[in-house]
Amino acid sequence: MAENLIVPVILAGGKGTRLWPMSRSQRPKQFLALTGDLSLFQMTLKRLADPERYDKPIVVTNAEYRFLVAEQAQEAGVELAAVLLEPTARNTAPAIAAATLVASRDGARLVHILASDHNIAMDDAYLAAIDTAARAARDGRLATFGITPTAPATGFGYIEAGESEASGAHHVARFVEKPNEERAKEMIAQGNYYWNSGMFLFDSAVFLSECRTLAPDVLSAAEASVKAAREDLDFIRLGESEFAQSPDISVDYAIFEKTALASVVPSPIRWSDLGAWDAVWKESGADADGNVVKGPVSLFNSKNSFVLSESTHVAVNGIEDAVVIASEDAVYVGKLSDAQDVGRVVKALAKDKATAKLTEEHRTSYRPWGGYSSILIGERFQVKRLFVKPGKQLSLQKHHHRSEHWIVVRGTAEVQIGETVQILRENHSVYIPQGDVHRLSNPGKILLELIEVQTGSYLGEDDIIRLEDTFGRS
Amino acid sequence: MAENLIVPVILAGGKGTRLWPMSRSQRPKQFLALTGDLSLFQMTLKRLADPERYDKPIVVTNAEYRFLVAEQAQEAGVELAAVLLEPTARNTAPAIAAATLVASRDGARLVHILASDHNIAMDDAYLAAIDTAARAARDGRLATFGITPTAPATGFGYIEAGESEASGAHHVARFVEKPNEERAKEMIAQGNYYWNSGMFLFDSAVFLSECRTLAPDVLSAAEASVKAAREDLDFIRLGESEFAQSPDISVDYAIFEKTALASVVPSPIRWSDLGAWDAVWKESGADADGNVVKGPVSLFNSKNSFVLSESTHVAVNGIEDAVVIASEDAVYVGKLSDAQDVGRVVKALAKDKATAKLTEEHRTSYRPWGGYSSILIGERFQVKRLFVKPGKQLSLQKHHHRSEHWIVVRGTAEVQIGETVQILRENHSVYIPQGDVHRLSNPGKILLELIEVQTGSYLGEDDIIRLEDTFGRS
Repeated sequence: MAENLIVPVILAGGKGTRLWPMSRSQRPKQFLALTGDLSLFQMTLKRLADPERYDKPIVVTNAEYRFLVAEQAQEAGVELAAVLLEPTARNTAPAIAAATLVASRDGARLVHILASDHNIAMDDAYLAAIDTAARAARDGRLATFGITPTAPATGFGYIEAGESEASGAHHVARFVEKPNEERAKEMIAQGNYYWNSGMFLFDSAVFLSECRTLAPDVLSAAEASVKAAREDLDFIRLGESEFAQSPDISVDYAIFEKTALASVVPSPIRWSDLGAWDAVWKESGADADGNVVKGPVSLFNSKNSFVLSESTHVAVNGIEDAVVIASEDAVYVGKLSDAQDVGRVVKALAKDKATAKLTEEHRTSYRPWGGYSSILIGERFQVKRLFVKPGKQLSLQKHHHRSEHWIVVRGTAEVQIGETVQILRENHSVYIPQGDVHRLSNPGKILLELIEVQTGSYLGEDDIIRLEDTFGRS
Repeated sequence: MAENLIVPVILAGGKGTRLWPMSRSQRPKQFLALTGDLSLFQMTLKRLADPERYDKPIVVTNAEYRFLVAEQAQEAGVELAAVLLEPTARNTAPAIAAATLVASRDGARLVHILASDHNIAMDDAYLAAIDTAARAARDGRLATFGITPTAPATGFGYIEAGESEASGAHHVARFVEKPNEERAKEMIAQGNYYWNSGMFLFDSAVFLSECRTLAPDVLSAAEASVKAAREDLDFIRLGESEFAQSPDISVDYAIFEKTALASVVPSPIRWSDLGAWDAVWKESGADADGNVVKGPVSLFNSKNSFVLSESTHVAVNGIEDAVVIASEDAVYVGKLSDAQDVGRVVKALAKDKATAKLTEEHRTSYRPWGGYSSILIGERFQVKRLFVKPGKQLSLQKHHHRSEHWIVVRGTAEVQIGETVQILRENHSVYIPQGDVHRLSNPGKILLELIEVQTGSYLGEDDIIRLEDTFGRS
């Protein structure tokens, strides 16, 4: 890594629940296209595409999201320096320490920590803030980005800016926890308070040295886990037992609120953490009646509302301040002004066996080879739509409890059953008896789509015995 | 028909839109199970099950609903005297005149006209009202049922009761159009005003004689259409051009508001026309918070709301006075107090080509042999679930533009392709090439379910060439 370039470290392991039912624990917010065609993670990658300024990014995530990270980066045409897999959730401090160690080992000086799920306008103000933070970091400061507040928000922590520095940053006077509205208004009136964005930029050596002093437990766990890390395809799995030794603590508490080296870069940038549906509504640009509508939606006599549908038609009549989100398999209806409440609703749904799955999975599941949607579940049968990317291959597998019928509806399939390999074209079908070893590949240049009809007494995803797999899952 | 029995005439041709998205023009309200396991039409049939009191019912409907009427009656175990098919919609007057002519021709004296989609408690008060009406009818009166008002409703017309009769009924003083709330309150305070229920009971000869005097155009069209009627399986198709000669007029305007023979039977019965979602909510018995919930629904911090879902999970949080209805393919969200507005919404959706189908069809279509659901529509393919009742057979048919794969997932199928007939059991599949004549039957004792995967350049329902059909559709 080049010394003069900034190494971005993207935190992409979050499971944010407040954008349910679109966000699910198996495919959370950062991997969804909420504001355009690209996912928030991909938009984050795009902001880091300037090779004069940034080195290849490091992504920190967990094992569950590794294929999503790899595929979405590939789709966006961005090469990653490394994908670090946190073996267990320990908040941001050990994740950032481990990533900084890896970056530093590879020669990086300047490290920029950023979230994978924020919406930021890439304008001159943004670039100026990055430059200021880089100068502060070169001056030995741990820079935080303080967003110039546009409203007395109560959902963010604030940073009070103190003495100014040559870089253009300010010493941090203090960090303020999420305030009530009155207190937020006072801070805004004072003019030297900023929203804590959770983005940082620092010299790796300075950060690690502060870690050693202020959070030695965090650093030693991070060091041991990097040392014990094992490479798994394109992923770096941090040592599990070592990483687990770290306290569960945020980098704010562990380092930034304690260090004397914290600086804040006043950042008058267009930024949103898209923390809940009201934030997405704000970022989406409402019409004259204050409405935002996405997907197959009909709106009548309604105001200040956000209605989004993935597939089902939604007709909304005579409502105000409402949020209606219809995913393929769940609908949320509430007040836009209660958008923060969604997390509580999801917790309740997750506790109930009947609804827990709706907080975890989407109807469509993505896999490194493509994915599938469950389109009909019957008593002893299930119908799925499978899609396989060109050149990809599923694992060599068998099922104890089900037979499968495959009907190709688009593209070309190569199907191995036992020792026999055959090519199926559109409108061809094949039968895979229970217990037979089989493998599906897409040898073609376009997406392969097929309809799978499973019949049997048990149809769970865990009845897959993988004998061989190109994605290291066997 | 026995002279002393009442012949019920059930009007089942309505296309009520205000219960959208559950009610669709192809399967409207009266054929839906809204308050229990039986449809409103079936519940109406059950109320008429007493052979000491009622003769077999005559149902008036249109051609589109003929199989629904026949099947639902069969399911309910009720034998119908006749199913009259209105060739075109001309409001209630000619339909009632034609049905009365048919009943009278078959020897009926007392005819009871009733709606197929009302919710009525079968208690002593109800039976007493029927008895009073029958006495009035025998005295040569045209009896209407006036429901004792329980609230100053503005959605119904009112009947003012005048001089009392020996039968227990009263002369009708006058009919009042739907009032405003103030006027409704005044009428209720006066005590001799009743809701106009749209139910009638009369002697067929008296009614037809009044028709001849007061609405001769209606009667002559009805007579001609009955004369020109042709029997089609179990249905009586009224003569089309003859029926079309009738003015488009309600029986209220044509007869009851003009005749000197109208009586009103004060009926303190539990009755609802289930005219809109607020009425269904009222009839469904709200919990302590005023909520009614049906299907897979989670409700949080909500009040006075009605949430119904057919399949998708619906989570509702922090709302009041809301109605959320999620059918298989559409969601309606509005205020419960605006429930009357749904009709306007449906009109708007029906006008828009993108949404018109959602006002006409359900995702699941019922046919005399069973039915199907479209479960996935792709670019050049479609996946359907077919279900065939025991002993039933689809038409002998072929398609110009599509091939079909059938996979049996439940029961046993007999499949004819060309001249070959084969039996398929669970987990068997068969391929029907484009253009091949084929026929599907269920020779078994349980429901046959199969998954159909269609591929081709055109997949519309109208690409069915029927060569032979047991249901008279070829």
